[in-house]
Amino acid sequence: MNRISPLGTVYGVGLGPGDPELMSVKADRLVRGARHVAFFRKAGRPGRARSIVEGMIPEDAVEFAMEYPVTTEIPFSDPRYNNMLSAFYADCTAHLRALAEAGESPVVLCEGDPFFYGSFMHLYTRLRAEVPVHVVPAITGMSAAWTATGSPVTWGDDVMSVLMATLPQDELVHRMEAADALVIMKIGRNLPRVRAALEQAGKLDRAWLVEYASMDGQTVLPLSEADERSSPYFSIIIVHGEGRRP
Amino acid sequence: MNRISPLGTVYGVGLGPGDPELMSVKADRLVRGARHVAFFRKAGRPGRARSIVEGMIPEDAVEFAMEYPVTTEIPFSDPRYNNMLSAFYADCTAHLRALAEAGESPVVLCEGDPFFYGSFMHLYTRLRAEVPVHVVPAITGMSAAWTATGSPVTWGDDVMSVLMATLPQDELVHRMEAADALVIMKIGRNLPRVRAALEQAGKLDRAWLVEYASMDGQTVLPLSEADERSSPYFSIIIVHGEGRRP
Ligand SMILES: C[S@@+](CC[C@H](N)C(=O)[O-])C[C@H]1O[C@@H](n2cnc3c(N)ncnc32)[C@H](O)[C@@H]1O
Ligand SMILES: C[S@@+](CC[C@H](N)C(=O)[O-])C[C@H]1O[C@@H](n2cnc3c(N)ncnc32)[C@H](O)[C@@H]1O
Repeated sequence: MNRISPLGTVYGVGLGPGDPELMSVKADRLVRGARHVAFFRKAGRPGRARSIVEGMIPEDAVEFAMEYPVTTEIPFSDPRYNNMLSAFYADCTAHLRALAEAGESPVVLCEGDPFFYGSFMHLYTRLRAEVPVHVVPAITGMSAAWTATGSPVTWGDDVMSVLMATLPQDELVHRMEAADALVIMKIGRNLPRVRAALEQAGKLDRAWLVEYASMDGQTVLPLSEADERSSPYFSIIIVHGEGRRP
Repeated sequence: MNRISPLGTVYGVGLGPGDPELMSVKADRLVRGARHVAFFRKAGRPGRARSIVEGMIPEDAVEFAMEYPVTTEIPFSDPRYNNMLSAFYADCTAHLRALAEAGESPVVLCEGDPFFYGSFMHLYTRLRAEVPVHVVPAITGMSAAWTATGSPVTWGDDVMSVLMATLPQDELVHRMEAADALVIMKIGRNLPRVRAALEQAGKLDRAWLVEYASMDGQTVLPLSEADERSSPYFSIIIVHGEGRRP
């Protein structure tokens, strides 16, 4: 390759929970100055990360939509799932790497905080040995969710655990019993299982369901009053800690 | 009282982990527009929250420093500790409430996210029945800490637990064994205990100590190489999860 410019940097920029005003000043600056912008989305959807920055990206910026080949159609356990995802991440990586090698500094838009259960992590681990990568932390979805409930999530020495609703049922119950404060993410079709697990752990009456925290359509309600069979992708369940408070 | 203006709002504004560029656009806007600014500090110290916004507060804004009557001088278990803190929070609340009743909207500066082990929570629970209170979430210290380590903290179905170093030793060990990813806060003089607990839980070799995340003087090192007997107030220990990654 005939390198005419120094290496650029790939920016993994956390955008926060959804409200554009909850982006950091740094993320705001990087997005408004971007020449190349990349983001994940489901095929046929605008992509939540891209939606957050609507109106902020320079008009002449080049956009690169990274469309997931699979999401829920193939079960995690199927080896094809891992293979397809791996190949997909390798493709995305090659594109971002080529941009950085051409001296460009693409901005990868990330929902919430990039290093907290984020998709960008899969690109990051593949890119970091190759080109400079800079990660900008952000407000997590869970921070917006507990703020939306109107009550602090942890007090004193409370132990807070973050659980994925996709965990096996008995593990969910066990973990729910053990912690003081709980955050449960990736709920979707697992809503009935999570509710049953919270009931078994004796914490259903303290659980709140927050949908679309800090986004248009934010709703907050006691989980015991939610009678849906599933919840949207952007849903979080919060159980507040009850620790020492002078 | 002869009320001449409508009630103001008390703003509990999360400033994030320390780097002013990691403040949200909303926090930046509220701080730069504030007429009254309140913040906690230890007597004789500038106060970290106040330092973060140095140069951003309007020159004619009125500042209200809320100085802790006790911190580590009296043990938690001593009933005087709770009484002194309660009286202190009541005083702060009275001041903020009076401002809001006079139509002012004071901005209370908070380190990290206000509802995540924050001091503002003690004012919030006392104020919310009296005057409007609006809380702005923020990037937590732990997000800045794991970002500083250069490795994502959680993958796939990893369970993440947040522990205070002030927990009893056997509970620390037990909780450390149970979780995939760990965040340990409020370390200070408990550093040797935390290290011993991590060793007993078989996780010392995976633990990172992050001091002053995103602040001047940020340091990141393997905990096993940290030979100090204590760490500064702004220290976090991170153990990364090792979950599924395609
Ligand atoms: C793949 S994880 C990404 C988490 C993200 N990196 C963060 O820091 O919040 C996706 C899950 O995050 C949660 N989530 C993220 N933002 C949210 C929001 N604004 N409202 C509700 N849930 C949210 C949902 O539980 C969703 O299933
Ligand atoms: C009372 S808690 C407040 C947490 C804060 N509300 C947050 O969201 O991070 C104080 C503890 O937070 C941690 N902490 C907060 N910000 C930090 C930073 N920038 N670097 C290291 N530790 C930090 C330290 O463990 C400290 O003992």
